[in-house]
Amino acid sequence: MMKALRKTAPGRGACLESVPVPSIAPSEVLVRVRAASICGTDIHIYDWDPWSASRVKPPLTFGHEFCGHIEKIGADVHGLAPGDFVSAEMHVNCGRCHICRIGQPHICQNVRIIGIDRDGCFAEFVAIPAANIWKIDPAIPENYAAILDPLGNAVHTVLAGAIAGCSVAVVGCGPIGLMSIAVAKACGCSTLCAIEINPHRLALAAQMGADLALNPGETDVVAAVREATAGTGVDVLLEMSGNPRAIQQGFQMLRAGGRASLLGIPSQPVTFDLVADIIFKGATVQGIYGRKMYETWVQMTALLKSRRLSLDPLFSERVSLDRFEEAFSLLHAGNAGKILLYPKT
Amino acid sequence: MMKALRKTAPGRGACLESVPVPSIAPSEVLVRVRAASICGTDIHIYDWDPWSASRVKPPLTFGHEFCGHIEKIGADVHGLAPGDFVSAEMHVNCGRCHICRIGQPHICQNVRIIGIDRDGCFAEFVAIPAANIWKIDPAIPENYAAILDPLGNAVHTVLAGAIAGCSVAVVGCGPIGLMSIAVAKACGCSTLCAIEINPHRLALAAQMGADLALNPGETDVVAAVREATAGTGVDVLLEMSGNPRAIQQGFQMLRAGGRASLLGIPSQPVTFDLVADIIFKGATVQGIYGRKMYETWVQMTALLKSRRLSLDPLFSERVSLDRFEEAFSLLHAGNAGKILLYPKT
Amino acid sequence: MMKALRKTAPGRGACLESVPVPSIAPSEVLVRVRAASICGTDIHIYDWDPWSASRVKPPLTFGHEFCGHIEKIGADVHGLAPGDFVSAEMHVNCGRCHICRIGQPHICQNVRIIGIDRDGCFAEFVAIPAANIWKIDPAIPENYAAILDPLGNAVHTVLAGAIAGCSVAVVGCGPIGLMSIAVAKACGCSTLCAIEINPHRLALAAQMGADLALNPGETDVVAAVREATAGTGVDVLLEMSGNPRAIQQGFQMLRAGGRASLLGIPSQPVTFDLVADIIFKGATVQGIYGRKMYETWVQMTALLKSRRLSLDPLFSERVSLDRFEEAFSLLHAGNAGKILLYPKT
Amino acid sequence: MMKALRKTAPGRGACLESVPVPSIAPSEVLVRVRAASICGTDIHIYDWDPWSASRVKPPLTFGHEFCGHIEKIGADVHGLAPGDFVSAEMHVNCGRCHICRIGQPHICQNVRIIGIDRDGCFAEFVAIPAANIWKIDPAIPENYAAILDPLGNAVHTVLAGAIAGCSVAVVGCGPIGLMSIAVAKACGCSTLCAIEINPHRLALAAQMGADLALNPGETDVVAAVREATAGTGVDVLLEMSGNPRAIQQGFQMLRAGGRASLLGIPSQPVTFDLVADIIFKGATVQGIYGRKMYETWVQMTALLKSRRLSLDPLFSERVSLDRFEEAFSLLHAGNAGKILLYPKT
Repeated sequence: MMKALRKTAPGRGACLESVPVPSIAPSEVLVRVRAASICGTDIHIYDWDPWSASRVKPPLTFGHEFCGHIEKIGADVHGLAPGDFVSAEMHVNCGRCHICRIGQPHICQNVRIIGIDRDGCFAEFVAIPAANIWKIDPAIPENYAAILDPLGNAVHTVLAGAIAGCSVAVVGCGPIGLMSIAVAKACGCSTLCAIEINPHRLALAAQMGADLALNPGETDVVAAVREATAGTGVDVLLEMSGNPRAIQQGFQMLRAGGRASLLGIPSQPVTFDLVADIIFKGATVQGIYGRKMYETWVQMTALLKSRRLSLDPLFSERVSLDRFEEAFSLLHAGNAGKILLYPKT
Repeated sequence: MMKALRKTAPGRGACLESVPVPSIAPSEVLVRVRAASICGTDIHIYDWDPWSASRVKPPLTFGHEFCGHIEKIGADVHGLAPGDFVSAEMHVNCGRCHICRIGQPHICQNVRIIGIDRDGCFAEFVAIPAANIWKIDPAIPENYAAILDPLGNAVHTVLAGAIAGCSVAVVGCGPIGLMSIAVAKACGCSTLCAIEINPHRLALAAQMGADLALNPGETDVVAAVREATAGTGVDVLLEMSGNPRAIQQGFQMLRAGGRASLLGIPSQPVTFDLVADIIFKGATVQGIYGRKMYETWVQMTALLKSRRLSLDPLFSERVSLDRFEEAFSLLHAGNAGKILLYPKT
Repeated sequence: MMKALRKTAPGRGACLESVPVPSIAPSEVLVRVRAASICGTDIHIYDWDPWSASRVKPPLTFGHEFCGHIEKIGADVHGLAPGDFVSAEMHVNCGRCHICRIGQPHICQNVRIIGIDRDGCFAEFVAIPAANIWKIDPAIPENYAAILDPLGNAVHTVLAGAIAGCSVAVVGCGPIGLMSIAVAKACGCSTLCAIEINPHRLALAAQMGADLALNPGETDVVAAVREATAGTGVDVLLEMSGNPRAIQQGFQMLRAGGRASLLGIPSQPVTFDLVADIIFKGATVQGIYGRKMYETWVQMTALLKSRRLSLDPLFSERVSLDRFEEAFSLLHAGNAGKILLYPKT
Repeated sequence: MMKALRKTAPGRGACLESVPVPSIAPSEVLVRVRAASICGTDIHIYDWDPWSASRVKPPLTFGHEFCGHIEKIGADVHGLAPGDFVSAEMHVNCGRCHICRIGQPHICQNVRIIGIDRDGCFAEFVAIPAANIWKIDPAIPENYAAILDPLGNAVHTVLAGAIAGCSVAVVGCGPIGLMSIAVAKACGCSTLCAIEINPHRLALAAQMGADLALNPGETDVVAAVREATAGTGVDVLLEMSGNPRAIQQGFQMLRAGGRASLLGIPSQPVTFDLVADIIFKGATVQGIYGRKMYETWVQMTALLKSRRLSLDPLFSERVSLDRFEEAFSLLHAGNAGKILLYPKT
């Protein structure tokens, strides 16, 4: 038996329960969770928002950002061994749909997500298909290892096009936006403008390396970004807010021929001035989902191993899994960075 | 003196006037117009829609699709000679803005368009910067030579990404949409679905090579396209309608990881389900404007010279410039293809 | 028991033997071979050249181009069923090396090839991992279905970069070179120059659609290709000969900024004028190996289904597997196209 | 009149002469040279090697790396003014050849190089076409401004493909190789292995940020690089040596699917094991010439302005133009970095 943070029924909240340690298929491994991290999606599940209500089928152990050590491997698993320090890509692709077969498993049409569609990592143990395991260099610290999933979102977004020598606007400075600032800077971007309405996060953006940290509540951010780019607009827009108004402003900041990479998830439709902001501009817009399997993992490992990314300002509390309510409270209050949960204290 | 079709004052219509033959700068050439073609933009100028009213400064000779023979060259012009059979890129880029300098002159921030911002080709003669002249292989027939400008839009859109072996939806089958069908087919696309509400144009779409010609007024086009692609959606969306509802349907037809190339100009804002149609799909959206200078011209010349494109069904009337009113009437009626105007009859 | 064409011991030739029908692993399928085709590699194995002697470990059933019907599926196989008409990617990638994980399984560092490293398809039955099976549209004729492996080489090479509107030199017109001509033409290339010393193959090249079919024994091919491209050189070089002298000539035909895609396998080192032919030219050179898994398969299926490729001139004899010696004799004589072997007559 | 370092006749050496200040065409500007830098090509011209003897037509003022202030502008020049701090792209493209028209002016087929084909910058003044002038942010120090030409070679090479998160081998650590190390590091590369036989340069390579600095005279560099990349080989080979043996070793270090960007100029043919090193590897090889006009200039300005590049270790002597013999002596001795020449002391 093990303890696990579970959504036991539709509705708000979660329960810490004692449940059996997961059994594993021959192609899977069992991982002893060392540290897990709470994603915005976990807050939605905790809060039981409409998306969660439509997608999640309780009972479910949730959580999908973590690191740990392999406890046991299935009979058909090669190249992994008990004791390996690992994280995992939690999007399990089907391998057989058209999209998987043409080499884009990160947008598999039948994806199942561990921690959403099957039991996740807010527990002492989690079962993971061996193909989804990512071995971690022991030099990478535990807190960084626990947030490879969202860091991968940031790396995927930043490296979805040219970045070296490019001016950048990061719109929305939640944890992934903040990571994107560090990644873009590490990859040689030039002027980086961060846009965020929360002053605490805006201060973090500056700390992560933003050249300009602009509050749209106080500043005409479009004008400020245009001025910072000699009237041309930025080469690259990294949209991390999901806010319709911010998205529109982001496109107004983008130069002709620029790239807009969209990761933030709007909760409502977004209206575009398609002619001015995309068509006449000759802009390229990219939807970004998940992490490339596994180029993104290679890239972020390389950036971390060569010590290019200083993400320390992003981490706030480290709490025992037992104190999950405290963790979610802090996150609801809005100023917390990444909170790590420890199943074993 | 020469005759020219001119917008002499704000308001609907145009006047055929006698005006001086244009003088040319040392870096320009004078072209004797053989045939000109009427673009949708010319109809807007004729009708004096809000865009025209804000952009066009009468008096102006309009028209920007044509072919002709060089009559005279400026003192600094090299590589061209009187008698050369030519057309021209009518977007005159500044050569000095940031966008020009990074090799994207087709989206120059200071572009001036001949026929919109300076006197155009609905006349016996037109002055063109030598750098914008495109020499035409004499093997290319006059009617094809007169429509290289819109054909270039089609080629630019189709070849903005992979096309060989790709399934395609062409949404909107005006002249450029119809040309896109021929171009995509010539470049090895697989199943091509044409979407158009006008039955006459839909019939032309089939004639140009569309495998499916679907009328959204009669058919659930999204379902039909999905069925034609084994449920996956098309690899490539070529948006040629500018119609918000059609654009939305187009994105619903696009497969995960697909490409949407947008050329059609909506006259109003367009609302997107950004999450479902772009972000989670990992789609790539491209704004397409003008023609690449001059890769697109090379590509279309190659396609025409190797006789890959049969555009004959697109041509309808050929009329003397004197009969311009008749030409615009036919176009207003909606079923005409490309109408050619002849200054010299 | 079944009959199989086997390399039973080091040395020239092969034996038709009766051997047990292969057993299959839970993730594999058993295919009843309908038609197999002989590759140049099979001739090397038959002849026991130095490469074969170093790589092949007898006893081995060879052969790796085929089509057939699934006879039986393993316990873990989904999405396939007995009776399915199929071919297969015979390069079995490991799925775990760095190269596989970054999405380039076609150049897996631990690849094992069915028909070279394990028993192949010159037999009544062949065992294939389910992930390597490619279901074939029943509309595709059996002879085309039997040669998807080499056709995939051609498609991979042609589509490794831009091809629409591009001028092309195909150097070396063996079966894959000839297929490349058809593929490049179907995908909208402009002037295509085929270079080949064997007059029979050169005639086939013209039949497949080459605009110029040039014999380097008779013509200054570099001069001829430059002349055909207004002195500029071709946009794309498809190197299919493996002949050092022909490779050098190929690079001399390539325009500045052009693409050279190399598939032909030289049996000796090749000397380059690196400065003139690659560096100052700003050329891009691509090594091409195998077929992309499985984009290439999607592309060739699309081209075949839309009837873009007429490969009929490539097929010569169809013989029973029993008459393999006759088949290899014909191929040694040099003028045969693709010969199909039928295990069941 | 002004002083100028000139090649007055075929043969070794150069003369400091008094010559008229260059006159300028209407589209040109006159620049007062502040600092010039000596390129390897200048040493070839000074030494009068076979290449120089075939290309350079004395009398000629040579030199093509510099910065200075605009002294005077031609009548047709816009956007520039006397006093502007500038450098220049010294490759003057024709603007009319096929290659220029398709947007690749850096490999123009009729390029003329200032300092090789017409009078260059080892003088008090130099005439430059306005289109080739690059305005420099006054924040960029004079010594950096004087070496934008070779820095552009480095930036062009490094950014010719993906670099962030990529392992890199820089083969050959002359000035451009050393700059490439700094650029690759600034753009987020991971493990960087520098290969160089000269111990002084190898020490500089480490100083510029190389993780491994390997001497092929002492170490099995191929084995060392493979070990440093877990047996896979590097993602990116930046070939800066022009040495045939080093080039061969470089390709042996490259991983399957990797990129080899070749800038170094071999003085003799180079023999390749095409099968093992390019074809079966699925490698991409790029010839790199000059600098992209003007994307590369934008990129290097961005990297310099955001203080990503510390090139200080590269600079050695600063001498008056009068002491040119001393400067060339130091360079012949082999351990000098970039030497700056000052026409005005």
